[in-house]
Amino acid sequence: MPKTRFKIDLNKKMDQQEMPGHNRWHPDIPAVFSADPGESFRMECLDWTDGQIANNDDVSDIKNVNLKRVHVLSGPVHVNGVSPGDLLVVDILDIGTFPEAEWGFNGIFAHENGGGFLTAHFPEAAKSIWEFNGIYASSRHVPGVSFPGLIHPGLIGTAPSHELLNEWNKREKELVDHDPQRVPPYAELPDIDSAVIGNVKGEQFDKIAKEGARTVPPRENGGNCDIKNLTRGSRVYFPVFVEGGKLSVGDLHFSQGDGEISFCGGIEIPGWIDLKVDVIKGGMEKYQIKSNPVFRTSPVEPHFTDYIVFEGVSVNEHSGQQHYLDAHLAYKRACLNAIDYMKTLGYTGEQAYMLLSTAPVEGRVSGIVDIPNACCTVAIPKDIFDKDPFPEK
Amino acid sequence: MPKTRFKIDLNKKMDQQEMPGHNRWHPDIPAVFSADPGESFRMECLDWTDGQIANNDDVSDIKNVNLKRVHVLSGPVHVNGVSPGDLLVVDILDIGTFPEAEWGFNGIFAHENGGGFLTAHFPEAAKSIWEFNGIYASSRHVPGVSFPGLIHPGLIGTAPSHELLNEWNKREKELVDHDPQRVPPYAELPDIDSAVIGNVKGEQFDKIAKEGARTVPPRENGGNCDIKNLTRGSRVYFPVFVEGGKLSVGDLHFSQGDGEISFCGGIEIPGWIDLKVDVIKGGMEKYQIKSNPVFRTSPVEPHFTDYIVFEGVSVNEHSGQQHYLDAHLAYKRACLNAIDYMKTLGYTGEQAYMLLSTAPVEGRVSGIVDIPNACCTVAIPKDIFDKDPFPEK
Amino acid sequence: MPKTRFKIDLNKKMDQQEMPGHNRWHPDIPAVFSADPGESFRMECLDWTDGQIANNDDVSDIKNVNLKRVHVLSGPVHVNGVSPGDLLVVDILDIGTFPEAEWGFNGIFAHENGGGFLTAHFPEAAKSIWEFNGIYASSRHVPGVSFPGLIHPGLIGTAPSHELLNEWNKREKELVDHDPQRVPPYAELPDIDSAVIGNVKGEQFDKIAKEGARTVPPRENGGNCDIKNLTRGSRVYFPVFVEGGKLSVGDLHFSQGDGEISFCGGIEIPGWIDLKVDVIKGGMEKYQIKSNPVFRTSPVEPHFTDYIVFEGVSVNEHSGQQHYLDAHLAYKRACLNAIDYMKTLGYTGEQAYMLLSTAPVEGRVSGIVDIPNACCTVAIPKDIFDKDPFPEK
Amino acid sequence: MPKTRFKIDLNKKMDQQEMPGHNRWHPDIPAVFSADPGESFRMECLDWTDGQIANNDDVSDIKNVNLKRVHVLSGPVHVNGVSPGDLLVVDILDIGTFPEAEWGFNGIFAHENGGGFLTAHFPEAAKSIWEFNGIYASSRHVPGVSFPGLIHPGLIGTAPSHELLNEWNKREKELVDHDPQRVPPYAELPDIDSAVIGNVKGEQFDKIAKEGARTVPPRENGGNCDIKNLTRGSRVYFPVFVEGGKLSVGDLHFSQGDGEISFCGGIEIPGWIDLKVDVIKGGMEKYQIKSNPVFRTSPVEPHFTDYIVFEGVSVNEHSGQQHYLDAHLAYKRACLNAIDYMKTLGYTGEQAYMLLSTAPVEGRVSGIVDIPNACCTVAIPKDIFDKDPFPEK
Repeated sequence: MPKTRFKIDLNKKMDQQEMPGHNRWHPDIPAVFSADPGESFRMECLDWTDGQIANNDDVSDIKNVNLKRVHVLSGPVHVNGVSPGDLLVVDILDIGTFPEAEWGFNGIFAHENGGGFLTAHFPEAAKSIWEFNGIYASSRHVPGVSFPGLIHPGLIGTAPSHELLNEWNKREKELVDHDPQRVPPYAELPDIDSAVIGNVKGEQFDKIAKEGARTVPPRENGGNCDIKNLTRGSRVYFPVFVEGGKLSVGDLHFSQGDGEISFCGGIEIPGWIDLKVDVIKGGMEKYQIKSNPVFRTSPVEPHFTDYIVFEGVSVNEHSGQQHYLDAHLAYKRACLNAIDYMKTLGYTGEQAYMLLSTAPVEGRVSGIVDIPNACCTVAIPKDIFDKDPFPEK
Repeated sequence: MPKTRFKIDLNKKMDQQEMPGHNRWHPDIPAVFSADPGESFRMECLDWTDGQIANNDDVSDIKNVNLKRVHVLSGPVHVNGVSPGDLLVVDILDIGTFPEAEWGFNGIFAHENGGGFLTAHFPEAAKSIWEFNGIYASSRHVPGVSFPGLIHPGLIGTAPSHELLNEWNKREKELVDHDPQRVPPYAELPDIDSAVIGNVKGEQFDKIAKEGARTVPPRENGGNCDIKNLTRGSRVYFPVFVEGGKLSVGDLHFSQGDGEISFCGGIEIPGWIDLKVDVIKGGMEKYQIKSNPVFRTSPVEPHFTDYIVFEGVSVNEHSGQQHYLDAHLAYKRACLNAIDYMKTLGYTGEQAYMLLSTAPVEGRVSGIVDIPNACCTVAIPKDIFDKDPFPEK
Repeated sequence: MPKTRFKIDLNKKMDQQEMPGHNRWHPDIPAVFSADPGESFRMECLDWTDGQIANNDDVSDIKNVNLKRVHVLSGPVHVNGVSPGDLLVVDILDIGTFPEAEWGFNGIFAHENGGGFLTAHFPEAAKSIWEFNGIYASSRHVPGVSFPGLIHPGLIGTAPSHELLNEWNKREKELVDHDPQRVPPYAELPDIDSAVIGNVKGEQFDKIAKEGARTVPPRENGGNCDIKNLTRGSRVYFPVFVEGGKLSVGDLHFSQGDGEISFCGGIEIPGWIDLKVDVIKGGMEKYQIKSNPVFRTSPVEPHFTDYIVFEGVSVNEHSGQQHYLDAHLAYKRACLNAIDYMKTLGYTGEQAYMLLSTAPVEGRVSGIVDIPNACCTVAIPKDIFDKDPFPEK
Repeated sequence: MPKTRFKIDLNKKMDQQEMPGHNRWHPDIPAVFSADPGESFRMECLDWTDGQIANNDDVSDIKNVNLKRVHVLSGPVHVNGVSPGDLLVVDILDIGTFPEAEWGFNGIFAHENGGGFLTAHFPEAAKSIWEFNGIYASSRHVPGVSFPGLIHPGLIGTAPSHELLNEWNKREKELVDHDPQRVPPYAELPDIDSAVIGNVKGEQFDKIAKEGARTVPPRENGGNCDIKNLTRGSRVYFPVFVEGGKLSVGDLHFSQGDGEISFCGGIEIPGWIDLKVDVIKGGMEKYQIKSNPVFRTSPVEPHFTDYIVFEGVSVNEHSGQQHYLDAHLAYKRACLNAIDYMKTLGYTGEQAYMLLSTAPVEGRVSGIVDIPNACCTVAIPKDIFDKDPFPEK
């Protein structure tokens, strides 16, 4: 086992940890430790909400969650000899849960608190607790399903340079400015409230907190990509924008469906992750990996071969209005079709929604050129159900 | 082998066939034959362009293609005892090429002739011819790759009712009316030019051709979904809108990448398809399959376990403008990232573009809630390349 | 489609074909055609028994089968420029059935006529006819199962040199001499009765027929390996013992379980096979491929992930006698365990036996060193059954 | 995490543990704890040799290993309410290594000390140490390979009844009596030397040690099956022969090739295993699971799709003598063919031998009826090598 270089006390908030992490992106956040290329280490992580959600049947913690606190991250790690223009090569060696926390949560955020992909259909908060039996997850709140975990970090990324950070803040503010009162908002802008910036104090804290980008979206540095296939055994090639790369990680998921549609999220857990770092000098230019990370998949994903698949096209489900090649809408329709179908199997809409967000479902951009309709599909493995899910004569 | 109920002469255009098919959707197009539930049959298909593209190195046929002719379909088939509200169950038993046509084409349409997903980057027409060696496809125009086919019908669907057809025509016209001069257009509206309506003649032809929906987009009836996983061995549950269901099929692909991003398209082929039909009476209501077909996957897809994966987020690649959860844009960025990378492996941009459109690449909606960025990924199997495609130190 | 170089009339016996094949191994059997390295061609094949088995419910043809006639092979093919010491590289491009023969047979040979792996338990002849619906096989004689084909040639190989042929005949005669009257015999020795030797006549026929090795066993040249994974898309590296390699092929199976335990056999079919040949000069020495062919698997096998697995160890099922690391016995016990179990699902023993011989079951040498017991396993995919096959509380 | 019910101190031998396990099979060995049906628990295990092998480059510990000490097992566990005739259902929830022991060993036993499958070819002792980087194993002693673990218990089983134990002892003694001086012996008979029998002392110890069956072979109770696919996520149905079932487990492997051909063995490790137990009352008769356990596979095995496969037939490699359907010999020839080939890639014979024993290679009984040759295959995944392992022109 690689040495634990970032340690967590599950009973403390991130800012109370002996070595606090952070929940904003900023080049000036000091590294928590340094590692050499070729080195492996373990980092422990809190769940993305900083421990706001409890293992019980009461939805109020989801309903009242403070989203300015997210995502509490472990890091950043300075990798020696890594400079802007390089590729930081990160092997995700292994990921696991803590023995004292063998459960995770999924939830639907209330519309007024951020909502989710289907907030127009499911505006109320909901919660499901998932318990782990070895490799399998199941939930007392979503009966009749069980599936092996595809454990992964929802969020992993390098630090932005000042220039890149400015670009993020500028472009996101321009978007928000289209409708600053929108609920949920178009984007989360820098906000000093609930910021955690390692051990930084005073003026420097205020500066970083005011400028630091929120961790919600994925961006050029990777970040909150929520890619379920970025699991143990995979290798990521990150663009490097600052000296040392400054790698951070968090938002671990025991499992997640493509799209993480309920927003909260996959099966959210604290846990540990073992990483090995390396560098390809000058790799950003050589391999033209500049806009986003590139990764290589793992040979140990759960494998399924029999799926029930739902299609969706880009026609508004309320108005019947035709949209132009809108894959977001097409995927929404596919998910709504899946939910309508699962209701005929006995699930509530909320259960089906949370199942799509947690189980290893495949969300695909199947057709993206057949004007005016995009066609997206969502594929659910048959074997997660305890009975045959297909239509019968 | 099931009996061939729809026969094609490869040397004739669809309207010259002994039993002509059609290239518009309309409930009044007469069935070409009837089949009982439980019956299997073979249907032969022309390629989607009605034979406009030749196996040569001259791109002019792609450049000058008449897109009003597409997609020439085989059918419709009337299934006895099937009525609106039922589910038409279609088993795709097998699909194959003709011995005299063991090749297919892919192309990039010129911007002025419809373009494709990346038309802003690749506005010129291009063509690649793919030859089949048993289960494998390779191309003299895209060297260094070979992959097993994931053969499937790009287009399969039931006929719309009059009401549904009206809805299609209305919503698509409303979209076009936003910018009727747009190139490429927002949608293809009914057009009598180049219409093929079976053996229908005279006034009835004019009526159907004027009202008949173009076959370009996928819709409630299935249609041009371009789902690569709808391969031999899969089973589709179609909503039924007219008596007999009126099933039509065409646009066969030897292979296709998710999204079919070049528009033209997968590896486009004429060929044959063996189908078995059955019915679930009242299934639309019982299973809430109303908006789109549902399908079950096949156990014989090509399997890969090692992919190089490119991410993309919804930031405009030209302006740097931030878009809101735009999966179309995110998938575009992922594809552009893949193309930039493949150029470092020695491919031209056009070759890489056509490769993404033809090879069994997985296009996924990985994250769809992390405001303001959608995250899409495109995953290319390592084993299609004749050398290791990963970055090296 | 590659050109058909070996054509079959399904209504004629092999020796009546325009271009007759052969059913003995001998270096002097003349090639039926020549091909260049890099060339592809189609060969058509009769079923291994030369058409002795009919699609009906009458077992008498299996019971009275003439096994001196097997296996009727297509070939041999002379590959230009290929010499002893080279490796003949054979790509199995594709394999298929004839439209007029979309069925195959499996059977249990009567004990007195060769028997099979479990002849002590199932001494009577039995027959099952399997019908093909596209990629799937099912049987009116073994209800409740359906599975995709893993089509392959049971037999493919190069010709032996005179020296190698002598070695075969010598070692097999020595084995038979231990108990020449044994039923079934220890080996099938050369026999002029029912020999087919291409167009060879007269003295030369007699010489070859008297010396020619029977085709029953796999040997250094490949031959009757009955390896289910040698399917379309795979590549074989054959040792070459004579000028031109002299490749022959036959005994096509639509599907087969590991071990082909009923002896007759997999799902036996006539059909066609598309091959591409090439050469690695001096490859036998360079790669030390001398004793048996080596092959590379295909990416398009049917894939399953959920199996019910039966174990067996090397203790005699009748006497309880302990044998020493006897994998043959251990596999027999595993198969018997599977059959006993399947009888509790409602199958007869004969049905279960034939199912193990036809379905894509995995037979593994799991442990081979744990004295005194070998441990073999036979794994049956869950998804071939139309109901859940696992034990229930 | 389930509660740890059997704890190990890695610095102590099994008989010095606070709660000692056992290394003989006997119905009278007292249970170390009881569990209810439906209960989950963790058991820790020493490596099979009781810690005799060190992580160094000195082969002497392998050479001088005391094999009378093997296998030190954790257990037995008494499951409440479980009686002879029932099936004990065991879910293998998860398995892992200890942080302080992230390495394992493989070795070749010297001929005089038990040897292995290929002892006639590799009579000298050898050792390879494998280190774990997250899910991957690699070895400084076998360069150029790396593969994900398929972690599993080599040994898991229920206790025999007195009758069954007598039958084992009787049949194995009869075998040994054929040649009591044979090296290696035909079987390991009961031996009081180095026996570990929990906390049992005095006369009772002597009785159990004298009667207790050695743990080397797999038998009706499961035991040392060494089935690589019995991995985390799988479910086993064990026949029950004594009250409480008395389940024991040990001999954990990080990975193993089919056959575990080097005898020592897979990648041998200490570690922990999480099990859940349940019961099917009367299941032995109902499901005819009497001779050996039955199991269901896991959805999270490593997956490979491209293998290089070696065939072997039952002809003696030294004498050229023909054997009759001898799958043991055929698998040996396949393994020898693989080793000869890997030597052309630069491996020593010993390295190749140990690789076949440790990597996730598939050993199949491909053909078992084609008299007189059995055909076995050994398939090595391409992707474990750091370069292309296939023959080149």
